[in-house]
Amino acid sequence: MILEAIYHEAYGAYAFPLNRNQLKVRLRAKKGDIIRAEVVHGDRYTPYEAGKDTITVMEKVGSTDLFDYYEAVLHSQTRRLRYLFHLTDGNQGIWYGERGFSDSPFSCQPFQFAYITEQDLFQVPDWVDDGIVYQIFPERFANGNPQNDPEGVLPWGGEPRWDNFFGGDIEGITQNLEYLADLGVTVIYLTPIFQSPSNHKYNTTDYYKIDPHFGDVEDVKRMVAKAHQLGIKVIFDAVFNHCGYDFFAFQDVIKNGKKSKYWDWFFIEDEPVVTKPRPNYETFANDVWSMPKLNTKHPEVKKYLLDVARYWLEETDMDGWRLDVSNEVDSWFWRDFRRVVKETKPDALIIGEVWHNAHPWLQGDQYDSVMNYLFRDAMVDFFAKGTIGVERFHTLLLKSQLAYNDHANRGMFNLIDSHDTERFLTTCKEQVERMRLAVLFQMCYPGMPMIYYGDEIGMVGKNDPDCRRTFIWDPHQQNQDLLNWYKKCIQLRKSLPSLRKGNYRTWYINPTGNVYGIIRGSDTEQPVGVLINNSPFTHMITLPAAWKKGHELVDQIEGQRWAIKDQTVEIILKPYQGLVLV
Amino acid sequence: MILEAIYHEAYGAYAFPLNRNQLKVRLRAKKGDIIRAEVVHGDRYTPYEAGKDTITVMEKVGSTDLFDYYEAVLHSQTRRLRYLFHLTDGNQGIWYGERGFSDSPFSCQPFQFAYITEQDLFQVPDWVDDGIVYQIFPERFANGNPQNDPEGVLPWGGEPRWDNFFGGDIEGITQNLEYLADLGVTVIYLTPIFQSPSNHKYNTTDYYKIDPHFGDVEDVKRMVAKAHQLGIKVIFDAVFNHCGYDFFAFQDVIKNGKKSKYWDWFFIEDEPVVTKPRPNYETFANDVWSMPKLNTKHPEVKKYLLDVARYWLEETDMDGWRLDVSNEVDSWFWRDFRRVVKETKPDALIIGEVWHNAHPWLQGDQYDSVMNYLFRDAMVDFFAKGTIGVERFHTLLLKSQLAYNDHANRGMFNLIDSHDTERFLTTCKEQVERMRLAVLFQMCYPGMPMIYYGDEIGMVGKNDPDCRRTFIWDPHQQNQDLLNWYKKCIQLRKSLPSLRKGNYRTWYINPTGNVYGIIRGSDTEQPVGVLINNSPFTHMITLPAAWKKGHELVDQIEGQRWAIKDQTVEIILKPYQGLVLV
Repeated sequence: MILEAIYHEAYGAYAFPLNRNQLKVRLRAKKGDIIRAEVVHGDRYTPYEAGKDTITVMEKVGSTDLFDYYEAVLHSQTRRLRYLFHLTDGNQGIWYGERGFSDSPFSCQPFQFAYITEQDLFQVPDWVDDGIVYQIFPERFANGNPQNDPEGVLPWGGEPRWDNFFGGDIEGITQNLEYLADLGVTVIYLTPIFQSPSNHKYNTTDYYKIDPHFGDVEDVKRMVAKAHQLGIKVIFDAVFNHCGYDFFAFQDVIKNGKKSKYWDWFFIEDEPVVTKPRPNYETFANDVWSMPKLNTKHPEVKKYLLDVARYWLEETDMDGWRLDVSNEVDSWFWRDFRRVVKETKPDALIIGEVWHNAHPWLQGDQYDSVMNYLFRDAMVDFFAKGTIGVERFHTLLLKSQLAYNDHANRGMFNLIDSHDTERFLTTCKEQVERMRLAVLFQMCYPGMPMIYYGDEIGMVGKNDPDCRRTFIWDPHQQNQDLLNWYKKCIQLRKSLPSLRKGNYRTWYINPTGNVYGIIRGSDTEQPVGVLINNSPFTHMITLPAAWKKGHELVDQIEGQRWAIKDQTVEIILKPYQGLVLV
Repeated sequence: MILEAIYHEAYGAYAFPLNRNQLKVRLRAKKGDIIRAEVVHGDRYTPYEAGKDTITVMEKVGSTDLFDYYEAVLHSQTRRLRYLFHLTDGNQGIWYGERGFSDSPFSCQPFQFAYITEQDLFQVPDWVDDGIVYQIFPERFANGNPQNDPEGVLPWGGEPRWDNFFGGDIEGITQNLEYLADLGVTVIYLTPIFQSPSNHKYNTTDYYKIDPHFGDVEDVKRMVAKAHQLGIKVIFDAVFNHCGYDFFAFQDVIKNGKKSKYWDWFFIEDEPVVTKPRPNYETFANDVWSMPKLNTKHPEVKKYLLDVARYWLEETDMDGWRLDVSNEVDSWFWRDFRRVVKETKPDALIIGEVWHNAHPWLQGDQYDSVMNYLFRDAMVDFFAKGTIGVERFHTLLLKSQLAYNDHANRGMFNLIDSHDTERFLTTCKEQVERMRLAVLFQMCYPGMPMIYYGDEIGMVGKNDPDCRRTFIWDPHQQNQDLLNWYKKCIQLRKSLPSLRKGNYRTWYINPTGNVYGIIRGSDTEQPVGVLINNSPFTHMITLPAAWKKGHELVDQIEGQRWAIKDQTVEIILKPYQGLVLV
């Protein structure tokens, strides 16, 4: 047994309560090294006695390139746990506890999960389990009210630039909510809509005012109300890391220097405030003069922003916040933010923007989940660029799932692109078959699939600003096949609970053929098999099929049937074909 | 290279800021596997370019039974870091990033530490670096005022039982502060002093009243003021997990049942409240009827307890709180507690009671540090019981140090026993030479040494209640040799900054002879060598001695001198002897 590979800790993604009487624990071991992993556990005020503890056998839930991962759910009436692992590799059994490894359960000291409090339970809104998210960049989605267009507005369909405008607005969203409902969307996430001089509006002038070119608060209320009628939740963008240059407080320090009562709302080197040759104040990223960084330590700044968070929830009844550059704002701010948001609307959602491992923010005290860029990176490399094979793809997915607890995984915004990236179809070099396969997989993956506006009709675009083109509303210019494919995949996800709530188990990995199979299911839901042939070749493959006897697998996309013989099934996969088998 | 053994994560004990421009990172690898570890880092808004990044070579800071640990401090002007590791084993170089291992720095994606905020810096009071802690169980330390003795008080020196009293009080502490100052103590930690019917007072009746048998608030103020004059800080015990049966709110629910406005302050199954056959309410541990668990989720309970925390800081000017059963109270409570305490007195100290790995509570948002029972366990097994050898001892110490960040390690209460354990000398089977050696080592260890009252004069006692005997004030009955040894060791620690603030590096491990050597020092402090012969035999050992040329090592205890020849030194260690070499 390779002891150096074995890993557990009694916190974080390795031990987290599911509820007040259940603790999920994970264990990592070298791939192929262990044949049996058990957890021996009891109340932590009761000393361990050989043979008197509860034994829970762990399930091997998946393997990456290097490791096998095991999970178990431990039950506790007293909510206070101590536990040891017992691991067997065929030759040798060993105990593993907080002190390390031992041949005796008495000398390695148990891990402890001191007490499962109600307050520290990670509560994610239940509606995330059914979520299909659609991201809207309002200036480019639809122009519902030409009356509020900015001066110099360009004709719809022009080339997007950093600084031009096409007149998209809130009314445009409202008018097209039926389109989104028809597509199957249940959540819309809007990039910022508060007053700001830019087209992206990430440099806020007034947090309390809807940008006049987008409409007014009444427009927003109507939009939210109609969305709710259609079963759609609405998420706003909280740009609290920084404000815009025109924000009243920043203008005050420009005017009054250190005498301004807002001086400490920012990080300014000295008066006067200058923007050249470089801004003499902290900004978003490095030296972006139009986005002064806010001092979220300052009690007034904090109060101001938390009031904003509460105000829009109360005023418009919207359903949550996506947090811009959230990893650069301190954890104390986000914890207070969470309190305010959840007190105001208990089932509101909080989604952070973190492009890397977001573990520190996903412990239940800050965000519900994040924009899942780890997922996107894997999807791009595997489906769009083809720069990684199926083994690496699988490893990256599993690593990202196991980096987080189950709660955060439920609420992931599983994107394949966004307003900050190249469009997926463009990365695919417009090979639609790659995109279709990726979308099918996205719709079969745990967490909430997120569609970037226009992806579903085949819109293309390189990096910002090109990825922010105006939505193509002319049906003849839309890729109707792709749109129907999106609808079909979404309906599949909606019709099969296992795709939404089931666990995620490896079914098949064919590294040379680039074929990937997963099973999604649980004790209570029927298993669904998903097969992905990410190659230009037809593959005939033989798979284990642990469905109940006499069952015939039916592809939910094309309806083809596959007989199970002797617990195996032979399946033919066409180039870039995906199957969803029930 | 054994990739499965390599571990890093960009948070927790593996990546933590030292200040706004310095991030300490740690890396774990299989023991003996790597010969060079480097960190390649830059601003995270600037993409990696080969050869253009900053390179920081990691230092190997120690090895446990299985692993080598490396550390580096990364500097960043922008406070935003991305970094990759480059590891070499002699044959092979490999890159390690968030995505895993690769032969290319471009395909493993850097780890990221998004931004070092001021708010999330872990601020521990500076005075901990000079701390020598003395734990007092007030009922048994000294009877300064016989007027306030409880009815039925027993003569000083009697046998301690669960329910008897000997008359110790606050005045007794005040009168003996000079004794403690003379011993070298700089911090006293008092087990609870608020009104309670028990001798230990962990079942509080009134959080706002000093127990009348201990004195009154004026006595406490005098005690604190005098302590401060003598350079001694005072820590109180916060018993906030549970109250006593006589606590007004619990009495109200007993009387009024569900009609009581305090019903939700507790976790009661049903009215009436009963204690038999088992209490029908949640308690400390399992079914301890005299200690009803408090519902710290309830806003009024929370406010009540936080007001208590603030009140005593303000009223008496005491210096911090030790938190009883702190691992069973939710993290939201402790975060608010930290805010209140640090706002009230910025350099107040917060020490949790956690007997196992306390990592979740030591991220800077909850406690400053904990009672270091991991240290105690190792000390007991190695010095007192002799059930582990020096290799295991070293592994346990290093594991506990590396389980936490540097900040938490500074503030540890490094105990060898307490009111909840057998006395160390008793565990030593009264072999004083073992205790002396342990105490010397304790005084040379990072964090604050904690002395349980009376240990220094040779008091013995089995588990609670026997470990709570009355202090022996008659000098003729005290072990004066041991007392002098304590004083000497404490003075040594005070005279050598490296023992208080230096890093901790392995010097020598002799598993068969059971000899242990460490070096404590830093770039700015002269190194101090500590050698421990935990055996009944004399050992002559040869060690590397990287002191500057011509230096002669002088033992700070007995004054003996040891010449360094060719960067080595030959030293003779007598049975159970410890040397502190400068």
